[in-house]
Amino acid sequence: MMHSEGKKVYKVLHEMRAAKPLIHNITNVVVTNFTANGLLAAGASPVMANAKEEAADMAAAADALVLNIGTLNQLQVESMLLAGAAANKKGIPVVLDPVGAGATAYRTDTARRLLKEIDISLIRGNAGEIAAVAGLESSTRGVDSGSSQSGTAETAERAYQALKLPVVVTGAVDAITDGKDMYRIHNGHSMMTRVTGSGCLLSSLIGSFLTVTDDVAYGAAAALGYYGVAAEKAGGFASMRGPGTFQVELLNALYHVGDMDIRQQLTLKKEALKGTYE
Amino acid sequence: MMHSEGKKVYKVLHEMRAAKPLIHNITNVVVTNFTANGLLAAGASPVMANAKEEAADMAAAADALVLNIGTLNQLQVESMLLAGAAANKKGIPVVLDPVGAGATAYRTDTARRLLKEIDISLIRGNAGEIAAVAGLESSTRGVDSGSSQSGTAETAERAYQALKLPVVVTGAVDAITDGKDMYRIHNGHSMMTRVTGSGCLLSSLIGSFLTVTDDVAYGAAAALGYYGVAAEKAGGFASMRGPGTFQVELLNALYHVGDMDIRQQLTLKKEALKGTYE
Amino acid sequence: MMHSEGKKVYKVLHEMRAAKPLIHNITNVVVTNFTANGLLAAGASPVMANAKEEAADMAAAADALVLNIGTLNQLQVESMLLAGAAANKKGIPVVLDPVGAGATAYRTDTARRLLKEIDISLIRGNAGEIAAVAGLESSTRGVDSGSSQSGTAETAERAYQALKLPVVVTGAVDAITDGKDMYRIHNGHSMMTRVTGSGCLLSSLIGSFLTVTDDVAYGAAAALGYYGVAAEKAGGFASMRGPGTFQVELLNALYHVGDMDIRQQLTLKKEALKGTYE
Repeated sequence: MMHSEGKKVYKVLHEMRAAKPLIHNITNVVVTNFTANGLLAAGASPVMANAKEEAADMAAAADALVLNIGTLNQLQVESMLLAGAAANKKGIPVVLDPVGAGATAYRTDTARRLLKEIDISLIRGNAGEIAAVAGLESSTRGVDSGSSQSGTAETAERAYQALKLPVVVTGAVDAITDGKDMYRIHNGHSMMTRVTGSGCLLSSLIGSFLTVTDDVAYGAAAALGYYGVAAEKAGGFASMRGPGTFQVELLNALYHVGDMDIRQQLTLKKEALKGTYE
Repeated sequence: MMHSEGKKVYKVLHEMRAAKPLIHNITNVVVTNFTANGLLAAGASPVMANAKEEAADMAAAADALVLNIGTLNQLQVESMLLAGAAANKKGIPVVLDPVGAGATAYRTDTARRLLKEIDISLIRGNAGEIAAVAGLESSTRGVDSGSSQSGTAETAERAYQALKLPVVVTGAVDAITDGKDMYRIHNGHSMMTRVTGSGCLLSSLIGSFLTVTDDVAYGAAAALGYYGVAAEKAGGFASMRGPGTFQVELLNALYHVGDMDIRQQLTLKKEALKGTYE
Repeated sequence: MMHSEGKKVYKVLHEMRAAKPLIHNITNVVVTNFTANGLLAAGASPVMANAKEEAADMAAAADALVLNIGTLNQLQVESMLLAGAAANKKGIPVVLDPVGAGATAYRTDTARRLLKEIDISLIRGNAGEIAAVAGLESSTRGVDSGSSQSGTAETAERAYQALKLPVVVTGAVDAITDGKDMYRIHNGHSMMTRVTGSGCLLSSLIGSFLTVTDDVAYGAAAALGYYGVAAEKAGGFASMRGPGTFQVELLNALYHVGDMDIRQQLTLKKEALKGTYE
């Protein structure tokens, strides 16, 4: 079972690596370097361009656009809107990572404004962030916390109902839904919570996977499965050493993870939703 | 002797880790990632928010605010003033790191403006930076240099006299004073000078320690003791390898340093000042 | 042969380390940390200052200025022009890294504007970027790609003819020309392409080398030789591990590479140009 699912996930990874897609990231100043190195390690090609003078041109040259509101400012929001319009016009995937939504009104409002003005392909966050954007009851403290990890699937379902677009909620168990199917992924490593930008990098990796498949939810599930397997591999090397080593080994693992790793380690489950949201 | 002092320092570290305080950093673009990862490794929760639209809201949600002028611009200064006012209103600690003060008039003037308009809990810098802010005779070249390392205690004393707030001067021997007591710390590792942002991270760690103690100077001394012991531990692993490995091992050590490490390695000395500054 | 050339390259490195030059970088938000750590590992002293309020003051205090357009915005361009004027007035070297030129009109136009308004000592980029700035036929996709690696020397020659200033084109074989001599360097490691900012750091290292020699092309060739040897040393440790380890080991190697490493590994070739461009 796992082996055949792993084969499918690896196929998406393999196609992404072969395509070497150009991922335009408008992201926060904390994670730029780690995001770029993670995309390079995985086999994608990163570019960052924040200025309104070039945001649209860069998005038009890219294969996917990733918007991350982790260190927002007004100029960056303008660039996101310009880049989003160019990406929509070209028809490339646009991923939104609402970092810290719920922590301040500015972040929540900006995330909602981007969802309103841009055709977003998928939103990814922890349970607190997604709940805040979707207007569900919850709260975010800072940018790393979320609500209880057990409720990721429920949060994803309810957020889909409110937002009507594919949702990824990450936590101890990751949940992905597009209103038809629900994917749950048990891969990952606890040390991820000690590395800043591990969620931001995941959002960018999802962007890279969406360049090679039209099934948004499955593409995201494949990206999460790959990332979770890489984190486990990194954790095997690094858990006795600490988060410094883990960060290094995660980049190594993104580079090395292949067919066999995914077949052996992937724990991806798919189930149909009740269909009450369509 | 050392063992009992180490026990007290560890107690502050332990309480900080249990509290997992949210540290709001308005800092420079060179060190954002390393600062966030260092805080996560130590057990605190970092957040960065620079925009004036949310700086006050984020500070009001945080447990401490750290202001770092390493890559200043006018928008960031406005955000620092807004965040500082919110932090003061809430009564949380505010740490100022005057990176590069003395190197340009803009940095020196801005550091002084922040001290004037915000109720700062503590200032930390190298001897050159602190001397520049306090108007003592000295000079700063770039952001990494300072005056002679031997004079950290003297600089700290004189800066306290001028600024009337707790001062940390870091160097080969670190010195901390609040006008009553002088703490000196001999821990640390020479490789620190080859890792950018090692001082900036320290300022943020001090912010995290100040969330669990009202004795500002002692809280800072505990943070410096912990950081110095972690640096020595990292140096033990990394000194034959180089600064790349040292940076990784410093994060590992911040994660792992515990009771026994501190008891065995801490070299913290406390003495009363002459009392002429009160 | 190699041994005597290596001795000369090491002499420049040794003089740079002894001088510990202050390198003012106005650079992109992706590579700030890696650039600063790379300069520190090599033995130089980095500073970053982007604000127009202090850009000129910092350049006037520095030993070299490096301008990198990787995440341009209008405020940063203003600061670059102010810093460039101050650097020219003081007579220190100014290096331009036109990251992503050709990918958007804004980048190409800004690179050309900087070349017009500032007296640039040397430009460094991949073949696609240099061709775009010089108006040669080529194309850039994102910021990491370039045209065929074999044409670096030809691109360098043609760009020199168009721009009339020393040009470095990096690729599988690096090429440097000042219109009189052509240097080719075969050192380096394929893993460099998986670490973001490896080119940006090189541009800053060239800036540090130019502080101790008046022969711009030779100073750049020496910096590239040193960097390529360090990359090979890092690759020896890291190639089985991955790009995370490679990044760490590159910093270690920049710190440790010495006389013997360079004498044994350097593959620097010098030949006279035909002289038709003067």
